[in-house]
Amino acid sequence: MTKTPKYIYFFGGGITEGSAEMRNLLGGKGANLAEMASLNISVPPGFTITTEACSAYFDGGKKIPSSLWDDVLSNLKTLETTMGKELGGAADPLLVSVRSGAPASMPGMMDTVLNLGLNDKTAQGLALKTENEWFAYDCYRRFIAMFGNVVQGIAGEQFEKIIHRVKTKRNIEHDTDLSTKDLQTIIGQFKKVVKKNTGKEFPNDPLDQLRQTISAVFNSWHTPRAKTYRKLNNIPSEWGTGVNVQSMVYGNMGDSSATGVAFTRNPSTGEKKFFGEYMVNAQGEDVVAGIRTPHPISQLEQDMPASYKMLTEVCQTLEKHYHDMQDIEFTIQDNQLYLLQTRSGKRTATAAIKIAVDMVNEGLISKGQAVSRVPANQVDQIFHPTINPKAKVKVLGQGLGASPGAAVGKVVFTPEHAMAMAQEKERAILVRMETSPEDIHGMSVAQAILTAKGGMTSHAAVVARAMGKPCVSGLGDLTVDLKKKKAVLNGVTLKEGDSITLDGTSGEVFKGQVDLMQPRLTGSFTQLMSWVGKMRKLKVRANADTPHDALVAREFGAEGIGLCRTEHMFFEEDRILWVRKMILAESEKDRDVALKKLEPIQRRDFTEIFRAMEGLPVTIRLLDPPLHEFVPHVPAEVRVLAKAMKISPAKLTKKIDAMMELNPMLGLRGCRLGIVHPSIYQMQVQAIMEAACKLAKKKVRVLPEIMIPLVSTVSEFRLMRQHIDEVARSVIEKNGVKLTYKVGTMIELPRAALTADKIAEEADFFSFGTNDLTQTTFGLSRDDAGSFLPNYIEQEVLPQDPFVSVDQEGVGSLITMAIEKGRGVNEKLSLGICGEHGGDPASIQFFHKAGLDYVSCSPYRVPTALLACAQANI
Amino acid sequence: MTKTPKYIYFFGGGITEGSAEMRNLLGGKGANLAEMASLNISVPPGFTITTEACSAYFDGGKKIPSSLWDDVLSNLKTLETTMGKELGGAADPLLVSVRSGAPASMPGMMDTVLNLGLNDKTAQGLALKTENEWFAYDCYRRFIAMFGNVVQGIAGEQFEKIIHRVKTKRNIEHDTDLSTKDLQTIIGQFKKVVKKNTGKEFPNDPLDQLRQTISAVFNSWHTPRAKTYRKLNNIPSEWGTGVNVQSMVYGNMGDSSATGVAFTRNPSTGEKKFFGEYMVNAQGEDVVAGIRTPHPISQLEQDMPASYKMLTEVCQTLEKHYHDMQDIEFTIQDNQLYLLQTRSGKRTATAAIKIAVDMVNEGLISKGQAVSRVPANQVDQIFHPTINPKAKVKVLGQGLGASPGAAVGKVVFTPEHAMAMAQEKERAILVRMETSPEDIHGMSVAQAILTAKGGMTSHAAVVARAMGKPCVSGLGDLTVDLKKKKAVLNGVTLKEGDSITLDGTSGEVFKGQVDLMQPRLTGSFTQLMSWVGKMRKLKVRANADTPHDALVAREFGAEGIGLCRTEHMFFEEDRILWVRKMILAESEKDRDVALKKLEPIQRRDFTEIFRAMEGLPVTIRLLDPPLHEFVPHVPAEVRVLAKAMKISPAKLTKKIDAMMELNPMLGLRGCRLGIVHPSIYQMQVQAIMEAACKLAKKKVRVLPEIMIPLVSTVSEFRLMRQHIDEVARSVIEKNGVKLTYKVGTMIELPRAALTADKIAEEADFFSFGTNDLTQTTFGLSRDDAGSFLPNYIEQEVLPQDPFVSVDQEGVGSLITMAIEKGRGVNEKLSLGICGEHGGDPASIQFFHKAGLDYVSCSPYRVPTALLACAQANI
Repeated sequence: MTKTPKYIYFFGGGITEGSAEMRNLLGGKGANLAEMASLNISVPPGFTITTEACSAYFDGGKKIPSSLWDDVLSNLKTLETTMGKELGGAADPLLVSVRSGAPASMPGMMDTVLNLGLNDKTAQGLALKTENEWFAYDCYRRFIAMFGNVVQGIAGEQFEKIIHRVKTKRNIEHDTDLSTKDLQTIIGQFKKVVKKNTGKEFPNDPLDQLRQTISAVFNSWHTPRAKTYRKLNNIPSEWGTGVNVQSMVYGNMGDSSATGVAFTRNPSTGEKKFFGEYMVNAQGEDVVAGIRTPHPISQLEQDMPASYKMLTEVCQTLEKHYHDMQDIEFTIQDNQLYLLQTRSGKRTATAAIKIAVDMVNEGLISKGQAVSRVPANQVDQIFHPTINPKAKVKVLGQGLGASPGAAVGKVVFTPEHAMAMAQEKERAILVRMETSPEDIHGMSVAQAILTAKGGMTSHAAVVARAMGKPCVSGLGDLTVDLKKKKAVLNGVTLKEGDSITLDGTSGEVFKGQVDLMQPRLTGSFTQLMSWVGKMRKLKVRANADTPHDALVAREFGAEGIGLCRTEHMFFEEDRILWVRKMILAESEKDRDVALKKLEPIQRRDFTEIFRAMEGLPVTIRLLDPPLHEFVPHVPAEVRVLAKAMKISPAKLTKKIDAMMELNPMLGLRGCRLGIVHPSIYQMQVQAIMEAACKLAKKKVRVLPEIMIPLVSTVSEFRLMRQHIDEVARSVIEKNGVKLTYKVGTMIELPRAALTADKIAEEADFFSFGTNDLTQTTFGLSRDDAGSFLPNYIEQEVLPQDPFVSVDQEGVGSLITMAIEKGRGVNEKLSLGICGEHGGDPASIQFFHKAGLDYVSCSPYRVPTALLACAQANI
Repeated sequence: MTKTPKYIYFFGGGITEGSAEMRNLLGGKGANLAEMASLNISVPPGFTITTEACSAYFDGGKKIPSSLWDDVLSNLKTLETTMGKELGGAADPLLVSVRSGAPASMPGMMDTVLNLGLNDKTAQGLALKTENEWFAYDCYRRFIAMFGNVVQGIAGEQFEKIIHRVKTKRNIEHDTDLSTKDLQTIIGQFKKVVKKNTGKEFPNDPLDQLRQTISAVFNSWHTPRAKTYRKLNNIPSEWGTGVNVQSMVYGNMGDSSATGVAFTRNPSTGEKKFFGEYMVNAQGEDVVAGIRTPHPISQLEQDMPASYKMLTEVCQTLEKHYHDMQDIEFTIQDNQLYLLQTRSGKRTATAAIKIAVDMVNEGLISKGQAVSRVPANQVDQIFHPTINPKAKVKVLGQGLGASPGAAVGKVVFTPEHAMAMAQEKERAILVRMETSPEDIHGMSVAQAILTAKGGMTSHAAVVARAMGKPCVSGLGDLTVDLKKKKAVLNGVTLKEGDSITLDGTSGEVFKGQVDLMQPRLTGSFTQLMSWVGKMRKLKVRANADTPHDALVAREFGAEGIGLCRTEHMFFEEDRILWVRKMILAESEKDRDVALKKLEPIQRRDFTEIFRAMEGLPVTIRLLDPPLHEFVPHVPAEVRVLAKAMKISPAKLTKKIDAMMELNPMLGLRGCRLGIVHPSIYQMQVQAIMEAACKLAKKKVRVLPEIMIPLVSTVSEFRLMRQHIDEVARSVIEKNGVKLTYKVGTMIELPRAALTADKIAEEADFFSFGTNDLTQTTFGLSRDDAGSFLPNYIEQEVLPQDPFVSVDQEGVGSLITMAIEKGRGVNEKLSLGICGEHGGDPASIQFFHKAGLDYVSCSPYRVPTALLACAQANI
């Protein structure tokens, strides 16, 4: 006989069995309830069903194992003894809440049932015992609706409609204005809804209620919205959820009762100030659902000073205990404070940075902990734009500034529409009465979110902050008519497609497209980054193609340029005609004429970039893309060029057509251009070296690194390096300066990685081009993968988009191989990476382990990369 | 002091220093001259300058090292003593020939100078000594022209024009009809040509002549045509050439003298019969250049019976000594036979097979030697078509059947035009007065070659046989007017683009396109292949898509089908509409309707293929190419389909456009189709298994292997295999038969090779798709590489086209890795290759070493592959 595992852990009442360390087994909520109970914080007693029980439930084909049910009954007995009440007891009934709690926080994703244990008999008992009939029936109607919705799958609207009808009829505004009789009417109608939808009466037996609810919480682990959230947040689906069965405390027992949520510090700015909101005479779901707009927590100090004091003391205890900012749920039942949840609070990147730095200064955490705690992926949030103060604006309204940053976009009313706009690369702002987990897909592609209802902790606000996008919530003056596809805000009608601007910091909404301004950096950020500097092994360079980008990158802390794509300069107006003439030249002579025009232009670009990066290495990649990317395809442009080339448009068109390729990604590009048309690379090297020599003469320190793209064999590299060295040496000699330069290559084809030992014998550096390397290793075009990659992620064939986070198993093994082979023959070989993965923290972790010297990413990702490099090294 | 290497080896006159083994040092010609001298075969004495001397010459910047020249002088002294004549001697001058001789045979590629040592004084001396003034001046005019052409770079035409003018003036046809006075006139004019072209007098000093000629022979190693030949034949350019300086013997001393070339057996058919041609009163270059049409060797028996007897005896000696068919050059000087060269004779594949088998039967060589000796790459020549005897033909003329096989094509007159036609995928027949090495490129792309001049050993004939393409030479009735772009053959005018047919076996030329017939196999071939069968480790399968191909492949000895591309059946008329409806279906329901129509059609195909391959494995690849390859793009076809689909052409066009991809090679294809549209693969597996079960019920042994294309991760394979197994099991169960099947994958992406251990845990077999693997490993599209690959080969960046012969260093290392990883986890894993490389002997050598189980190639390459597999194993 196998020993039955311990499926249940009790907490509270002096017999707590779990602790915060047991998060994987108890889920985050259960583990922290146990921990708080051990800290003597006032927590309503209860018990936690483990995630192992959840797995056993699914392994057994969605059946509650009999040993589990036995344990539920015995723990229930303990709870009844502790509370001195009985579930289903007619006189003083025990009511319980049943809440999910997974090892990773999944806000709003899992389902909760409150007030379980009520039926006609116990409701009456509760009314008698509390001498508060209204309260008892308020609990009862809430229970039927929640059970009906969460456990029995009946649409919430069916219940809301009934309340709305009664309120309209009685001409009252708030739920709290309903009379006991109203509540009883509502209860009766609710039961009919249940009967109509399920074909059965509402279950009266509290044990039956409990059993069904536990199953429902387990089942909710596999709802589509939970799956989506897990996918978005990389949470393994094997984990399962815990279930917390806890004795009820009541925030809806009248004006001495309340319920609320709070953060120990401001989750938006990081300010060390107690932050949150509460509602008098309400139960928890009223706050989170954003049905009524709650009061700010500061008001509690006046409303219930004793409770407020207790609350702030609990917050201090929790922060000192957990060494982190906490997100708590609390209930005040008749002036008595209970904590229902504590967890590490989600925060904006700005807040994460400020809190981490402040806590170091407060002696709560170490610098290393501070650096580890800022989510590198979100750091670029702090560079969100703001409204230009000089911009002329027309304010349409003001709500709560729920997630910082300003955004411009076109109004859409549905998540589907937001997704369609994203497909078209259009910027959308999602405007809703309120949001729900079903909207997550749409929210993730929208520029910003605007809701009429809900507070700072409403679904829209929490999710927007996590996603790092601006949100204005609780804009009461806004009405949205989904059917007519229009919204009205203070008398102004907003139609689908109208442009608006919003400021998620101030909560303001503006008409049209308002000019935005780039953000400046805070002191905390500078402080944090100064620590980061000393904690890294990997250096961080930037991918910068223009002098402007180079300056921005350097300001953000870039330690050089890892990729300067010379062709990005080719499209500028003063040169595209010559670029085209060069490409389509009728003879080598004509080509040379065009190249002679381009050389001084390129030289000027390089001079400015070198100057901006004085003292730091600048890696310049020679021309890489297929030449046909530069030639005109529109008849009008063809005519202009034909005239300039003095040939007929028909002839030119024929030339252009002849350049087209079936698979340009695998065609005449990269060093193949240098081999077939050597004069192009010669011009570029000439321009680079002339620029470098000119500055060297002025005592400016320049460190040029010339990079050859798309090398597949050492013979390509050898031939190209020979050409480069010839030009470089002759320019240096002509200028009579001392100047060193490097010549290296991209490693972006499998063959280059496989033969890296050969190439490393001739090269000064490797830079992994992980975009192309991913494309060829998978045989997958980034441009075409859109038609099937989402399906791949959906079916879990791929864990994630390999263009976002590097595929360590396949592409990574080629990188590791190339590093070993390269370093094996050339100790001095410098190694970097310049694909999009250079700014992805998960990939940086891998590059750190693989032993690269640097990563290179876009200028705005530099701080992210710096942070991720330090985190990888801690 | 470093010891000076021995740069010269003497031969003949009883003091021979070299031997046949020293081919690398002495070149083939020099080594065999030494060997013949040792065998007491009558060879004019001389000496060979080594290939090391050639390297020293180039290393020293094209200067003859002084030690080399000292050796030349001392060996010349020995030669003078041996011959009793002096170079430059006025009374009885020694004349020498100077010939190149590389380690590998390079026919017609290198230059030769005959009669060196002549000047006004020695010519007179020669005339007096031989009492044959005509002969002496014939030699002299030849010498000036050859020296002028080969050493001084004067166009041969300038000399030929002079002779032509004199002949026309004197109204004579042949060079032999020229009078001594004519020859003297010619010599005078030749000298003027030299003076005019070089600005100097023709060099009188024989040592100066010799020195210049040795340099010229060395230099000819780097002429463009020599480079081209080396590239075509994979001869390393480091080798260098030897130089043979040999005392002259004269075939132009009158009617008792002759010169000729011969093969010990028929190089075209392999028949054991002395074969060749000769010219009376001529020197060697007259025969090879094809200026006059020579006599067949059989006629020599009547003309000079003693010489003929000696010649046949020498041939027997040589064959017994070399154990191979020989290609000899000989000269008869005044009834005295001299051998000037012997080498292994080039031969057609048919001849190679017959000679090898005959020599085994004659006890000359072993079976293993016989198998090794047939060039695997050329075996498919024996499957060349022949003229259908039932065809109605109009014979235009008949020349020599110089290279076997019949061909149909359009007349072109220049190699450039032949290449242009090849670009357009048009079949061309190159029609020339004669060919020269400059024409090789054009010849290699033409279907066949037709020349007016030249014999069986003319340039056209030799090259055509080596290339395995039909050739008719010596068609005297043909005249070609290059300027007017027309030819006249027996009064019929052939314009550019006119279709003709020729038979390279009979020498006939026909008007228009004549019906051709597929060849049958000879007894020798069957004999050889029976030996091959026992000498292999690798099995050979065929890539066959239709029942017809399967039957052909099996007849050729295929041991299964390694690749059946199901989509090749999709274009047939009875199904393409349904294929298109399936692809462009408006709904899953519509798609299912189309799939239901296609399933029985595919089932019938598979049934026939399985039946054709009874008892042998048949690997069927599920749908692979991008779906847009199947949809219509021509408006008329779009309208037809739109009507069938009951939607507007505009809507259909939009759907079709939406399917287009930027890089279809890296897009939605292979198993990605199976993942996105599972019903397509389900239909195919259904069809395969229904066909297999149906036959299994009839006791036909079927071995189906289902292959999943373009797998990059094991999760793709796992998901697809799950779908396949479900369908397969249900079909087998429904039919109630016992049937085993395999499920495996292509390894054609680097990622699949890198993670082969993971995939091998789930797969029954791997089949390397080396076409795609080469594309992705190099990042090189086969369709687009044409714009730069020739340049790469030209600049020696790549040694050869990696799509023809597998890149062992890069692609090969992935293959080796995948084999190791795959076998490491799955001992039973079956391993094959089904890319184009499966029929390439050099690649097969690699696959054998790598340890594959089989190769698969096109049906007509099966014998080649069988042979190459045996050769790899010997």
